Amino acid sequence: MKHWLATPARVPDAAAAEAATLRQATLTKPPGSLGRLESLAVQLAALQGRERPRVDVVWIAVFAGDHGVAVEGVSAFPQVVTGEMLRNFALGGAAISVLARALNATLDVVSLGTVNDPGDVAGVRREIIAPSTANIAEGPAMTDAQLDAALITGVRSVERAVAADAQVFIGGDMGIGNTAVASALACALLGESPDVLVGAGTGLDQAGIARKAATIERALRANAAAITPLECLRCLGGFEIAALTGAFVAAAQHGMPVLVDGFITSVAALAAVALRPDVRPWLMFAHRSQERGHARVLAALGGEPLLDLQLRLGEASGAALAVPLLRLACTLHGSMATFAEAGVSEA
Amino acid sequence: MKHWLATPARVPDAAAAEAATLRQATLTKPPGSLGRLESLAVQLAALQGRERPRVDVVWIAVFAGDHGVAVEGVSAFPQVVTGEMLRNFALGGAAISVLARALNATLDVVSLGTVNDPGDVAGVRREIIAPSTANIAEGPAMTDAQLDAALITGVRSVERAVAADAQVFIGGDMGIGNTAVASALACALLGESPDVLVGAGTGLDQAGIARKAATIERALRANAAAITPLECLRCLGGFEIAALTGAFVAAAQHGMPVLVDGFITSVAALAAVALRPDVRPWLMFAHRSQERGHARVLAALGGEPLLDLQLRLGEASGAALAVPLLRLACTLHGSMATFAEAGVSEA
Repeated sequence: MKHWLATPARVPDAAAAEAATLRQATLTKPPGSLGRLESLAVQLAALQGRERPRVDVVWIAVFAGDHGVAVEGVSAFPQVVTGEMLRNFALGGAAISVLARALNATLDVVSLGTVNDPGDVAGVRREIIAPSTANIAEGPAMTDAQLDAALITGVRSVERAVAADAQVFIGGDMGIGNTAVASALACALLGESPDVLVGAGTGLDQAGIARKAATIERALRANAAAITPLECLRCLGGFEIAALTGAFVAAAQHGMPVLVDGFITSVAALAAVALRPDVRPWLMFAHRSQERGHARVLAALGGEPLLDLQLRLGEASGAALAVPLLRLACTLHGSMATFAEAGVSEA
Repeated sequence: MKHWLATPARVPDAAAAEAATLRQATLTKPPGSLGRLESLAVQLAALQGRERPRVDVVWIAVFAGDHGVAVEGVSAFPQVVTGEMLRNFALGGAAISVLARALNATLDVVSLGTVNDPGDVAGVRREIIAPSTANIAEGPAMTDAQLDAALITGVRSVERAVAADAQVFIGGDMGIGNTAVASALACALLGESPDVLVGAGTGLDQAGIARKAATIERALRANAAAITPLECLRCLGGFEIAALTGAFVAAAQHGMPVLVDGFITSVAALAAVALRPDVRPWLMFAHRSQERGHARVLAALGGEPLLDLQLRLGEASGAALAVPLLRLACTLHGSMATFAEAGVSEA
């Protein structure tokens, strides 16, 4: 079990990064004047192993699962919504469905189990583990076999992305209650107090946030025996969070750049980096979420997001919104004229 | 002369904004979870006068002109570059050329006069006023007739955009020395000291920045008689800055939303709003530039940019990079399913 976790991540290509850096210096603009887009092009060059990277083919995997902790009243929305949104993803009405279409990206929707099961729906891959995890306020979220299954679901999505020649992998989440679970997991991984990481999720009021923080406290006490990253993920994670963790590790192993979405996916990235620190170079961060704990998790990862648009939707929507920046960074890097080609004088 | 300035800006459509706000509340996502994209869709609805705005047709005007103050050594690049870059814009090698192509936007390059004149170049509209403005360190940049001509050049670009059914107008600048001029103009309009507004431009070192600040001091003394916004623009502006000012006023008069680029264009926006405060609602701000004075100018305008990517290129490049966000905001707003349509439960 989990032997695949021992496979090292690919090593980014330093020679390609060097070539890309040299090319940037020759393009007809003041050196450095394209700011983050320049470093992004160089990073993508290193990850794709070529001087001129491309982000034409984008893979967006959204993993959905329900959480036992929802019974504690930690979300503004009822638990039936997880299953309802699966149908909405497939029928094209959800934000990520609209974005994937607009970006010409593949949308890979994977259900890991929901209490309200929509059954067979075209466009939803069923890799059902259970209707939900167990309530983390009372004990471990998953059995070891369930954790294995969830991780592997993420690995398989990456394998499909590789087979489709995807150039960037994006992961997204859906699961009522998952900001509570992600906050608990981040507390355990970072040794932080719930007060630092708990937030409003989909729209809790102050009383709701206090109830959520107390629930996370209980969860941390109930799972105090979890010390290793894998045990933290099993005891305080969720099916979709474990799938994202498995996907991020596998992406790094396959040499596939990852564009991380918001709070939930960043906590999955934190778990992935805790499991395998060599995953970190493969991660780009799309946006700074309005969810309160995201800043702390980003700081722990040294992640500097591209966007800050007060988003807090999940579903990979923030990562999708950053895709045009990656594409335009590559297009500028690959297509601008050099000073020599254009006959423009240098500084 | 300048009678056209007396025409009021169109009034944004409050009913369309209200309808868009109501629609946002019905879409399958937690209310507010798309953050800035929600307010952007509502603002565009108000400006375009319809519940579901579109940003399919984008007009990018780049105005180029030289500055007499360049003789003071206020730029890291030689003055010949303004004319050289005009050719690069037309031949497709400049950043804004690459971006306009990638975004399927119209690029309207207008030369107002350069010391190094590339002559007739396909893709460059010649509306030559003079090879350069006069040196603001020694007196007024323009005669009254030159200011008129420059303003009208901007108006005419907007008229072409209107004729092309453009849904958003973007203005850009090219002109060696223009951060010095824009800083001086902003100082005059805001009553600020050069120390607050001067920056590195295309890449000055500390000594260069000190020289630039001293030059701006001289310019403010030499043009101390300029009190009204129009006189400040004539004495401390540039051809391309005045063209942008004229364009922004005309866009508001025509009811055309404007996406403002970086420092130079924000100073032109400041002049436009000083001339006609009713221009302000028509301005959206694309990005926070790395040029030091931009923060102060944005604060004066109450502008909250969408992007912060350490850009400092000009040419409208930062505004072009924000176009996908406007488009995706409109697509999400127009195409997401409502809770009722998707059968998803509400909070």
